[in-house]
Amino acid sequence: MARKQGNTGEKLLDRGLRLLSQAGLNGVTLGRLAQQVGMSKSGVFAHFTSIADVQIALLDYSAQFAAPRVIEPALRQPAGLPRLKALVQNWLGWAGRAGLPGGCPLAAAMFELDDVDSPVRDKVLQMEASWRELLAQLVREAIDASQLRADLDVDQFVWELCGIYLSHHVATRFVRDPSADARGQTAFEALLERARRE
Amino acid sequence: MARKQGNTGEKLLDRGLRLLSQAGLNGVTLGRLAQQVGMSKSGVFAHFTSIADVQIALLDYSAQFAAPRVIEPALRQPAGLPRLKALVQNWLGWAGRAGLPGGCPLAAAMFELDDVDSPVRDKVLQMEASWRELLAQLVREAIDASQLRADLDVDQFVWELCGIYLSHHVATRFVRDPSADARGQTAFEALLERARRE
Repeated sequence: MARKQGNTGEKLLDRGLRLLSQAGLNGVTLGRLAQQVGMSKSGVFAHFTSIADVQIALLDYSAQFAAPRVIEPALRQPAGLPRLKALVQNWLGWAGRAGLPGGCPLAAAMFELDDVDSPVRDKVLQMEASWRELLAQLVREAIDASQLRADLDVDQFVWELCGIYLSHHVATRFVRDPSADARGQTAFEALLERARRE
Repeated sequence: MARKQGNTGEKLLDRGLRLLSQAGLNGVTLGRLAQQVGMSKSGVFAHFTSIADVQIALLDYSAQFAAPRVIEPALRQPAGLPRLKALVQNWLGWAGRAGLPGGCPLAAAMFELDDVDSPVRDKVLQMEASWRELLAQLVREAIDASQLRADLDVDQFVWELCGIYLSHHVATRFVRDPSADARGQTAFEALLERARRE
């Protein structure tokens, strides 16, 4: 990655993230990105070395963009259930609340890139693993605080929580179901209830 | 849709479904489809009137293709829990077992098409609603057989079940996690357990 810094680079990342959110990784082409920022294709390529470099930079930028909106406010809550609940609340539907015109770039990428091995796929895999590790860490803090049971299968909990997120993503963005938030909350509370029972 | 019948049409649908499964709706281009079947682009267009027509035909064909593999064997089970369990067992991971080279076309389409209104999106919406209605019908049969509790929120059950499917899809196809089947089964059994409790 040989990106130049500066206003143009920031504008490229900002517009690129919006494009990524709406059109997915395959929708981020040099032509469309150049059009979004009012540059030539070669102007865009002065900032990136390849389209994969663009996509990886946008994935990195989406994580930077999401952190202060989703993770940081949750980490200011007390460790344990308050922190876990805050993170889940900030996570479900985050892209829309953050003003992105489309959905969660990572969720879409997991379905888009499942079959093609590439550095971009590796990047998404690594981001997904980091995210699950953060969720697992917050679940373990709730176990340490005796708020969830000691023998809880943390990976199973996180696996099911990711299912709730994906179902909520489909319900809000694809089905446009107004009950999506309530359904996600009910599902999460039931998951917590199971995790509390001895 | 002005598709001609015959062997070439079948070959187009068969190869097209494989392409759709691997590359998603946006990956189904005239050029790639023509290449897969060894035809010219204009030869492909003798069978379809537009690329949206191709995509809708492939979505229809994917439903036809899945029915005898996923739905019909389940419907031969006794109404109630045996039928519901058989359907879920046939559903999770169906695309790989059916020999498709990629994932479930419908699951991927829900993330691909969330933001763009189009006849193809409407088609996917309608297929997704039919699928949820089938799941709901089988859950209601289990309620009628007193195997699940009478006051169960059927739509919530189906919503969470779809989350399990999506998490399983990501776990198998994207993360390539060997524990995906066991995790999906554990999640489904927990959902059933909640649906049984008074």
